[in-house]
Amino acid sequence: MSLVRVQNFSISLDGFATGEGISVDAPFGHAGERLHEWMFATRFGRAMFGGDGGSDGVDNAFAERHESLGIGAEIMGRGKFSASTGPWTDLGTDDEWRGWWGDNPPFHTPVFVLTHHPRPSIEMEGGTVFHFVDASPQEALALAREAAGDRDVRLGGGATSIREFLAERLVDVAHLVVVPIVLGRGIRLWDGLEGLEADYDVEQVSSPSGVVHLTFTRRG
Amino acid sequence: MSLVRVQNFSISLDGFATGEGISVDAPFGHAGERLHEWMFATRFGRAMFGGDGGSDGVDNAFAERHESLGIGAEIMGRGKFSASTGPWTDLGTDDEWRGWWGDNPPFHTPVFVLTHHPRPSIEMEGGTVFHFVDASPQEALALAREAAGDRDVRLGGGATSIREFLAERLVDVAHLVVVPIVLGRGIRLWDGLEGLEADYDVEQVSSPSGVVHLTFTRRG
Repeated sequence: MSLVRVQNFSISLDGFATGEGISVDAPFGHAGERLHEWMFATRFGRAMFGGDGGSDGVDNAFAERHESLGIGAEIMGRGKFSASTGPWTDLGTDDEWRGWWGDNPPFHTPVFVLTHHPRPSIEMEGGTVFHFVDASPQEALALAREAAGDRDVRLGGGATSIREFLAERLVDVAHLVVVPIVLGRGIRLWDGLEGLEADYDVEQVSSPSGVVHLTFTRRG
Repeated sequence: MSLVRVQNFSISLDGFATGEGISVDAPFGHAGERLHEWMFATRFGRAMFGGDGGSDGVDNAFAERHESLGIGAEIMGRGKFSASTGPWTDLGTDDEWRGWWGDNPPFHTPVFVLTHHPRPSIEMEGGTVFHFVDASPQEALALAREAAGDRDVRLGGGATSIREFLAERLVDVAHLVVVPIVLGRGIRLWDGLEGLEADYDVEQVSSPSGVVHLTFTRRG
């Protein structure tokens, strides 16, 4: 049975997964890159930008699973795909918006983007195809599972989608990364998840880099 | 120079230091004892209740500093001292309320309780004297420093007091303990502390017990 996974999802000490003031020029708002610096310092993160070196300890062990697990499909919220909200025509250039990741996004699978405003699918280089679906978490998961076959499904974010899927207990394994900053504002992961630990084994492992790897594994 | 310390202050993953529904019978509301079980499992925690044994690793190393540092005075919020709010006469038995800790509280020093409703000091067994002061954080700290002499001052909580003192950068060292539960509601520590990491070195260390010891040390 394939699993539904959250991987490398960074939050601040106060539980924010992104900041305020999100725009095309500031995909994480006032948080900037601070939530993801831990990953850029790993071998996996360096290689993403064509670099060499980087740490090869626990941070990298988690980070590189983004590729090495052979994920078969991704689900992401509109908020991960784009800085805009509402009808795509609200923003002048939005009909042309093809995500943050350039011509060859790092997914290489079907990606189901949750939105109340469906639009035609976009086929990118490298195997990524963005599909835009107005669907419940359960419906989106059925689509992704079918696309993924035997392989796992990644739930990519943002915080709102992950919160919704966790609330429905649709996530098998959630790997979060707690970064030692206090963001103060933005989009919070934890709201509405009271008692999550009743259905998950929770592990917290600190890294010498300063982050904590926080893993929720659904009980059998 | 004596330091102002927060010690062994437990919060949930979502940043709550206590739950909802606080009463004389439920000092932490719906959180119950879950935020403090890590301490009860240590040698220090067992000894508090006259027991033997208990863990003697990192959790105990932090926990026993509650005694071993030789703290000279404590500051606590009204919310740590009592389940009631407002004038002490609001609750029938409140004039008799002498804290949660029995005749010999585990402080053994002057304790300055922050309240807008001053009342006469209470001298307990074992050296604890509760003083009730309507004071700003700075004023309370001046009183506590004078009482403590060369020794350190403990800021005991609750979350509201710690948040206020941190916001004013009056805390030198804050040791928090992140317990792997999602409380969902209660009193949150982090609100209004955006950017705290700019003035503190932050360390996160995970314990085999499942908690993370999170330490803020003010930069020099």
